[in-house]
Amino acid sequence: MELSKRQKLLKSLAQEGGKIVYLVMDGLGDLATGKYSETPLEKAKTPNLDNLVAAGACGLCHPVDYGITPGSGPGHLGLFGFNPVDVVIGRGILEALGAGFLLKKGDIASRINFATINKDGVITDRRAGRISTEECIRLVEKLSSIKVEGVEILVKAVKEHRAMVVFRGEGLGGSIIDTDPQVTGKKPLPAVSTDETDKASIHTAGLVNKFIGKASEVLSDEPKANAILMRGFDAYHPLPTFMETYKMRSAAIAVYPMYRGLASLTGMELLEIAGETVSAEIDTLQKHYEDYDFFFIHIKKTDSYGEDGNFDAKVHVIEEVDTVIPRIAALKPAVILVTADHSTPCIMESHSFHPVPTLINGKLVRVDDQKVFTEKACEHGGMGQMPSEMLIGLAMAHAGRLLKFGA
Amino acid sequence: MELSKRQKLLKSLAQEGGKIVYLVMDGLGDLATGKYSETPLEKAKTPNLDNLVAAGACGLCHPVDYGITPGSGPGHLGLFGFNPVDVVIGRGILEALGAGFLLKKGDIASRINFATINKDGVITDRRAGRISTEECIRLVEKLSSIKVEGVEILVKAVKEHRAMVVFRGEGLGGSIIDTDPQVTGKKPLPAVSTDETDKASIHTAGLVNKFIGKASEVLSDEPKANAILMRGFDAYHPLPTFMETYKMRSAAIAVYPMYRGLASLTGMELLEIAGETVSAEIDTLQKHYEDYDFFFIHIKKTDSYGEDGNFDAKVHVIEEVDTVIPRIAALKPAVILVTADHSTPCIMESHSFHPVPTLINGKLVRVDDQKVFTEKACEHGGMGQMPSEMLIGLAMAHAGRLLKFGA
Repeated sequence: MELSKRQKLLKSLAQEGGKIVYLVMDGLGDLATGKYSETPLEKAKTPNLDNLVAAGACGLCHPVDYGITPGSGPGHLGLFGFNPVDVVIGRGILEALGAGFLLKKGDIASRINFATINKDGVITDRRAGRISTEECIRLVEKLSSIKVEGVEILVKAVKEHRAMVVFRGEGLGGSIIDTDPQVTGKKPLPAVSTDETDKASIHTAGLVNKFIGKASEVLSDEPKANAILMRGFDAYHPLPTFMETYKMRSAAIAVYPMYRGLASLTGMELLEIAGETVSAEIDTLQKHYEDYDFFFIHIKKTDSYGEDGNFDAKVHVIEEVDTVIPRIAALKPAVILVTADHSTPCIMESHSFHPVPTLINGKLVRVDDQKVFTEKACEHGGMGQMPSEMLIGLAMAHAGRLLKFGA
Repeated sequence: MELSKRQKLLKSLAQEGGKIVYLVMDGLGDLATGKYSETPLEKAKTPNLDNLVAAGACGLCHPVDYGITPGSGPGHLGLFGFNPVDVVIGRGILEALGAGFLLKKGDIASRINFATINKDGVITDRRAGRISTEECIRLVEKLSSIKVEGVEILVKAVKEHRAMVVFRGEGLGGSIIDTDPQVTGKKPLPAVSTDETDKASIHTAGLVNKFIGKASEVLSDEPKANAILMRGFDAYHPLPTFMETYKMRSAAIAVYPMYRGLASLTGMELLEIAGETVSAEIDTLQKHYEDYDFFFIHIKKTDSYGEDGNFDAKVHVIEEVDTVIPRIAALKPAVILVTADHSTPCIMESHSFHPVPTLINGKLVRVDDQKVFTEKACEHGGMGQMPSEMLIGLAMAHAGRLLKFGA
């Protein structure tokens, strides 16, 4: 993994400095259109976020590029300073992270679909009748009993007929075709390396086939889910860490597996949270405040309610976050930065391409004339508009963590 | 022709979606300075364009880069999503397009200057006494009678002593030196390939020399224009099309040959217009509205009057365009985008580097708080400032034509 030109610059200038609290309100940005005359951020009473803007500056950030709607992976990679078009995390790895795996370098991840095959080994249902998630959990326990020599095998249930598997060991490769033929009426394909010269993947394909064979044995008495199909093989290569790139001891305070996983990709420590509330996240921040330089705090529910089109609940989460701002400010970090990985407008019930409201607060911030934290104020804010990729360096700069460039 | 990194991203995400009307008011941007206290766009009464802003957003676009004054080629390449510094259309090709040639892949274009030579073959006037355009047209008819075996030769008059020629056939090359020695008192140079290993260009240079020889014969009785000089040889390579890059059935509604030519470079269909008025252009839009996803409508006269320094006429054209906006809006495209290929300030009587006023209107636009379409409003608009290269993707995003990037 190459650093971007900008990251190399930051790395060359990084020094010790003040602490940074990087608060990511997932899917925060929204639209006042159609039935909505205000955005949730405009509607919400946010006196504390407004104070951060009044004594700081705001602007709009484009997570990936103008007009591009980011998935969670690219959205966060940008916030962590990576170019999200150049640094692509494979779908298999993202799904493994989302399923709660903490991956290690060299791990090979793949999706599993439970399927039904007939007595001739021909697939009759690629989703095993869409079994329930409870069924999936029971079947995953069966798969977890499988041992294959030379490799550690970790299986987790995802949802309904879907699960994830991780193969862990030395000398594995992830260039392996899907065993799922994508249609019924055919037999599952054997796992085969896509590259005849790639010994690691050839070796791994052999291990995968042993796993599939044993899976057929342990599932043989199942009425529906008597086989597995595998697709989306992917090898895990860790990203350069926050410590080596930005010289910051970094920690993530995130409830959901996907975001914990994305943070762990960059070497952040994953801090324990006593519960799932915003307040519990800030308890964790207080508890570990002395131990790190950089805290990534992830708020999931702004996005979840945007995806549900639940305007009032999104307003409520924003107000809930607002109430903890004084607790963050009381710790006196050099920089508080509040942003999002993308917009999730209630009217669209999905991620969108609209740039995200962003604020920065700290002693070295050039204070602009905006007084509130809203999409409109951010359009006029002193930060202007920029790619989200710029934010990590801006936060470091305002925390005194970047040397002068050149003499 | 390589796509830019951004175009590759757009291509990978492009899907079906709503219709886009892309209205380019050539040279629209202007300056309120010197004898002008307002720009033409500020002076013009534009209630309908203002409505588009009031229910949409506006901003400023830099066609090529900060401080760079674009020619028509780069200005439009940016609007079409190409990086106008990386993708250079040769001057010969642009002039051929401007002269009204519809080029085919592999065509070789060159400028022709009519010149005067004495009895020893020495050039005495490189512009043949700046003959009239009528004279030029008469002489081009003579050149059009020339046949050279193995190649089709197409000649068009341009202006005064200037004409264009296109050589069409298999296996031609455009790496050929100018035959114009750039000074009087010398003989014209023979056409020679710039590359000894380039068989296509060597072959073509031979054909060009035959053409020049026959031109000398048919012009031998002319008192002034008894020879031709050739310069700016250029081979035509089509750009990737809108369909293959953006997955849009695209059409151009443009009166002037240069802009029809630029559109045809990207594979747009060239629609017929009954007349040259703005209203006639919108008649064409209405007639073909069902048949395409993307319409490039080009308004020439904003630029022409800017070049003439004719402030009042530029105001009048802007007002004329304003009157057709309701006809465009009545078609209910997903996105109406109004912009320009560059500024042409009346006070400068030329293209300029000033960023161009731009508006976007559509259901998914995050409405900003600007209410009118002027340079000043655009400085404060929600779109911010961006390279014009971004616009095509923004239009696609707002028309629902881009998938999410990454999981």
